Amino acid sequence: MNSFGMKLRFSTFGESHGKALGCILDGVPAGLDIDEAYIQSELDRRKPGKSEFETARKEADKVEILSGVFEGKSTGTPIAMIIYNTNQKSKDYSNIKDVFRPGHADFTYFHKYGMRDYRGGGRSSARETAARVAAGAIAKLMLRSLGIEVLSGISEIHGIKAQKYNYSYVNESIIYALDPDIEPAQKEAVLEAKNRHDSVGGVSRVLIKGVPVGLGQPLYYKLDGVLADAMMGINAVKAVEIGDGVLSARALGSTNNDAIRANGFETNHAGGILGGISNGDDIVLNVYFKPTPSIFQKQHTVTTTNEEVDFSLKGRHDPCVAIRGTIVCEAMAALVIADMLLLNMGSTMSGLINYYK
Amino acid sequence: MNSFGMKLRFSTFGESHGKALGCILDGVPAGLDIDEAYIQSELDRRKPGKSEFETARKEADKVEILSGVFEGKSTGTPIAMIIYNTNQKSKDYSNIKDVFRPGHADFTYFHKYGMRDYRGGGRSSARETAARVAAGAIAKLMLRSLGIEVLSGISEIHGIKAQKYNYSYVNESIIYALDPDIEPAQKEAVLEAKNRHDSVGGVSRVLIKGVPVGLGQPLYYKLDGVLADAMMGINAVKAVEIGDGVLSARALGSTNNDAIRANGFETNHAGGILGGISNGDDIVLNVYFKPTPSIFQKQHTVTTTNEEVDFSLKGRHDPCVAIRGTIVCEAMAALVIADMLLLNMGSTMSGLINYYK
Amino acid sequence: MNSFGMKLRFSTFGESHGKALGCILDGVPAGLDIDEAYIQSELDRRKPGKSEFETARKEADKVEILSGVFEGKSTGTPIAMIIYNTNQKSKDYSNIKDVFRPGHADFTYFHKYGMRDYRGGGRSSARETAARVAAGAIAKLMLRSLGIEVLSGISEIHGIKAQKYNYSYVNESIIYALDPDIEPAQKEAVLEAKNRHDSVGGVSRVLIKGVPVGLGQPLYYKLDGVLADAMMGINAVKAVEIGDGVLSARALGSTNNDAIRANGFETNHAGGILGGISNGDDIVLNVYFKPTPSIFQKQHTVTTTNEEVDFSLKGRHDPCVAIRGTIVCEAMAALVIADMLLLNMGSTMSGLINYYK
Amino acid sequence: MNSFGMKLRFSTFGESHGKALGCILDGVPAGLDIDEAYIQSELDRRKPGKSEFETARKEADKVEILSGVFEGKSTGTPIAMIIYNTNQKSKDYSNIKDVFRPGHADFTYFHKYGMRDYRGGGRSSARETAARVAAGAIAKLMLRSLGIEVLSGISEIHGIKAQKYNYSYVNESIIYALDPDIEPAQKEAVLEAKNRHDSVGGVSRVLIKGVPVGLGQPLYYKLDGVLADAMMGINAVKAVEIGDGVLSARALGSTNNDAIRANGFETNHAGGILGGISNGDDIVLNVYFKPTPSIFQKQHTVTTTNEEVDFSLKGRHDPCVAIRGTIVCEAMAALVIADMLLLNMGSTMSGLINYYK
Repeated sequence: MNSFGMKLRFSTFGESHGKALGCILDGVPAGLDIDEAYIQSELDRRKPGKSEFETARKEADKVEILSGVFEGKSTGTPIAMIIYNTNQKSKDYSNIKDVFRPGHADFTYFHKYGMRDYRGGGRSSARETAARVAAGAIAKLMLRSLGIEVLSGISEIHGIKAQKYNYSYVNESIIYALDPDIEPAQKEAVLEAKNRHDSVGGVSRVLIKGVPVGLGQPLYYKLDGVLADAMMGINAVKAVEIGDGVLSARALGSTNNDAIRANGFETNHAGGILGGISNGDDIVLNVYFKPTPSIFQKQHTVTTTNEEVDFSLKGRHDPCVAIRGTIVCEAMAALVIADMLLLNMGSTMSGLINYYK
Repeated sequence: MNSFGMKLRFSTFGESHGKALGCILDGVPAGLDIDEAYIQSELDRRKPGKSEFETARKEADKVEILSGVFEGKSTGTPIAMIIYNTNQKSKDYSNIKDVFRPGHADFTYFHKYGMRDYRGGGRSSARETAARVAAGAIAKLMLRSLGIEVLSGISEIHGIKAQKYNYSYVNESIIYALDPDIEPAQKEAVLEAKNRHDSVGGVSRVLIKGVPVGLGQPLYYKLDGVLADAMMGINAVKAVEIGDGVLSARALGSTNNDAIRANGFETNHAGGILGGISNGDDIVLNVYFKPTPSIFQKQHTVTTTNEEVDFSLKGRHDPCVAIRGTIVCEAMAALVIADMLLLNMGSTMSGLINYYK
Repeated sequence: MNSFGMKLRFSTFGESHGKALGCILDGVPAGLDIDEAYIQSELDRRKPGKSEFETARKEADKVEILSGVFEGKSTGTPIAMIIYNTNQKSKDYSNIKDVFRPGHADFTYFHKYGMRDYRGGGRSSARETAARVAAGAIAKLMLRSLGIEVLSGISEIHGIKAQKYNYSYVNESIIYALDPDIEPAQKEAVLEAKNRHDSVGGVSRVLIKGVPVGLGQPLYYKLDGVLADAMMGINAVKAVEIGDGVLSARALGSTNNDAIRANGFETNHAGGILGGISNGDDIVLNVYFKPTPSIFQKQHTVTTTNEEVDFSLKGRHDPCVAIRGTIVCEAMAALVIADMLLLNMGSTMSGLINYYK
Repeated sequence: MNSFGMKLRFSTFGESHGKALGCILDGVPAGLDIDEAYIQSELDRRKPGKSEFETARKEADKVEILSGVFEGKSTGTPIAMIIYNTNQKSKDYSNIKDVFRPGHADFTYFHKYGMRDYRGGGRSSARETAARVAAGAIAKLMLRSLGIEVLSGISEIHGIKAQKYNYSYVNESIIYALDPDIEPAQKEAVLEAKNRHDSVGGVSRVLIKGVPVGLGQPLYYKLDGVLADAMMGINAVKAVEIGDGVLSARALGSTNNDAIRANGFETNHAGGILGGISNGDDIVLNVYFKPTPSIFQKQHTVTTTNEEVDFSLKGRHDPCVAIRGTIVCEAMAALVIADMLLLNMGSTMSGLINYYK
């Protein structure tokens, strides 16, 4: 249950303050050029400690490939990647050993497993998402060979919304903002909350370009369903929209339908997916992150023996998890699309016969 | 890829205008009383043709159990259920044989498979959800044995929102409305659209009561992720929220966190799930349905040979798919919870040892 | 757990004396000509009651396709097939209601599930294999498009071994014998046992011709491993060999290795599989069936309340399950090969890129 | 496809001459005492270079746990284990870069993936089984908590068969022999072949004691089927028997059936499994290993460009892979049984209800 994907399948391991974390990525076709510098650059986008908008915990997040690559190319065998933890400070967490942090998974892990690794959230920490980004980087390399691109950026922070989506600006922005004009107000919202020992939520908008028609395995491994699972499964995500999402539920059929012309769709309310299958248009997702539950204000909670206490968290935390979260959304989206590309092979007899000719 | 669930797994078959549709439900523990009248009553809630708010196609939706039940009890073997189509009128669909209906899966199925069963949408028709409701009814019977209840209702139609959620009212309402005071306006919105040969979207709100702490298999079979997949995979769904959902992305950490007291949580912004695991509180979902793509107004589209045409659909269609859709949401939610109950067994060594003692 | 296969996946349902049995076959590529007469002819090969070498229970085993086929071709959606039971005589089995038949699954089902459908073995009856044969027939149609053929026959009964393997003779033989010269002695062994109210074991030899190099997903969905699972999972099978099997464990490396020449292998001790992957040579399996446990001699057993009794079975039974079992071996082998063909697509980047060009 | 198991699932990575190999073991219940010394001791049983009966390659096979264990106990999260390769000598293998070793997976990997990591067989090397033994050791710790024991030993080498099965002797024997009287002849057969630059096959006999009635998920995740897959998937295995296996196909029903008495079965021809479900008796398997394909005699083969050559292998190899292979059989058997224990939970409603009470 720590694995994701059907034909391109990754399994992750590791805790926030353990020795190492990493993943096995299984199902990468043989012959892909494995550009290690690129993989590292993706990890660098997600890694913490780059600015005041992120946690102060600094991690090198240096990834090492242990298997599955020979002379620079994938061999078709599992690619294992490992990232050693270098800046874990377990003593930071001694004060949460016996108490459940509100909004965190402490309470649920403890009751599910009868125990928990309390150091920094253990397995439930978003630190695990580094492994997803490493796997996602390889998926992106696969997609690039087919002309598919996965982009994302922050469209909204604490209700302050981008008015335009400029994906080429994102990597110039320390908060991965989509709209340079709105970015200053978004930054201010983050810092204001931080100064009040509070946190804010935000929204990642994901754009996938160049996807061929036909991806998605109906009816229970649909492209939209699997993307929803992939996104909702990211730490702190509470809502996922495909295309117009919530707004489509308020629209009329006559305005929500995307009319079709010989060269494509006139509009893209559907977000590139019809009946759980890609329609060739851009795939668009909105992913809603709650505010970081780790705040320094005093909160009501209970201990592991169910005694009520007032609790103030210490430690190092992102004031807005959506910011680094958007990199994880990209990685997960890339993994889903790559998996669907592989699964779609063999949907027709003619495709099967051609393959073996 | 036409199966859902890990330990409680159902596989469906059938097309809108084929001989029959149905499912195999695998993994039901032995010894469950299979109340056939209850299963039929759930199908009756979803079946079409009950009012002017639904399609005029009348189907008995009579379910027959073929296996897995002996002397009224489940035997632990697969339960197959079949529903014969009785009111298919394939001639209704001859006019869509060579044309893609906007907003439908016609375009994507044709391009994925190189062909399609065009009769009423074939496999992509929401008619298939009858099989989900049959399977969901058995899941509900399982859950009832453990004091778990899955409820739902319509909270919003065409932007007209319920002000209160009265789940006990739902079955009195022909549109499964949660708020009797808002219901008339919601009905009017549906009929007004229908009269204009248009359709409207809507929102189903799902409430799951009595779920024990600990359900959900992190990190990639999380309760919220799987629920999101289950809901997004329902025909016409474009967004899914857990708990406060979209709103949580606009909140502060200090207001979004649910404080904990000895007898439970003070609030439920999280919608009953923390870290992908149930926290014992009510689970709350909002499921957003787009307006029915089947409308009678003239629309731009193309033929299967990519010629542009103006097209007016004929046939029988729901003016608001959310209405009957809410019954499917319940079914899927019940199936997910039942699966998670089974998967959670063996999370601890003490649980394992006790089981075999 | 009532499903088999990864990309070509079938799920079966049904009990020996229930209303019907059948299966859903999911993952058949769209565009395959579904030759219903051929499917029926495969079921006819397996169906009981054709001679004195089989059980006297007569079943029409008429298969009906419920979905997934449109205008004679597969559509890429699940193909459901149903076979109604017509000759169940539940009263035959009232005498075994409270007693466990030695050598049968009665004991284990009762203890696993706390109950059992005792009518003719219920789910554990080999009657379920009719559904496998129906699914296997469609797999064979797929394979035929690629020039792959799955053959089998009886090589040994009660220790009497074929001296040659004449697969073209098999369908002329009422016991599916591979060697016409040995067939009379094999038949006599069956009848002699039958006359003594006893039963005999036998061996099916499976030959798969035309398999391309490269099928099998190492290291845990190997071609040989999955074939072993598929064969061992057939009722009454107790051993499986690939190629030389048991004998290879007594050989030297120098004689067991298959030398390679430019046009192929010099020998085929390996049975067409190296490292879990097909090597392009014929795939050869031997499948060992125990004698039918249903015999009419008096045996020691216990009741469901653990009282010791002497028990004489009544009813209608095959004196040698291997005979009809060989048809099931073929079906399962065909399903495995077809699944592996689909899974193998995308093993290389060049294959992936070509597919989407 | 590099994963095995359903609820207790392990995924392995690594090549013979890569940096490291290892695995992720997912699904271990929380609260198990993880005895690292025991895990290492299991690896020590399998590790190479201990005697003249094994390859001269010396590997420390030191295992390190990276995650999933906290304060000496499993936490319910994935347990990652890593073993660094320390004695790889890639230059040993430069002579096989362009040639396919007969009896090896070189040919099939090359054709499946269009390339191969030729160093020591790469992924197809039996070196990967170290990861299985590490995972299997944890499974054994789980089983021990329930009183289940997995034993094995060598019953036969080059046709020389044990006359008795003394499992307590096995760990005293450098070749894991079951019969101390036959051991000298078996050793001599190995050394004689080795001296002739040849190799021999052998048989591992596996005994599993203390398994409760009810394990196995019919009809397609049967205990015998999954064991067959697990064993056949081990490098060099060509046949698997359950209980009497091949001999049962030559027996009569009257002698092959195991009569039942109030305190258990009178005999155990079935090898502890009926209808794919454990019957509470000892589970017995025989696993047949072909002779090591790596021999130093001159053999016919072809190059990667299909030129015929005469080829003499160099390097370090086991003269009889069955010897160390028996440790892998134990590991795989333990993993299967542990998985089945977890899967069996929830087979009955009463079990489910009791669990959540």
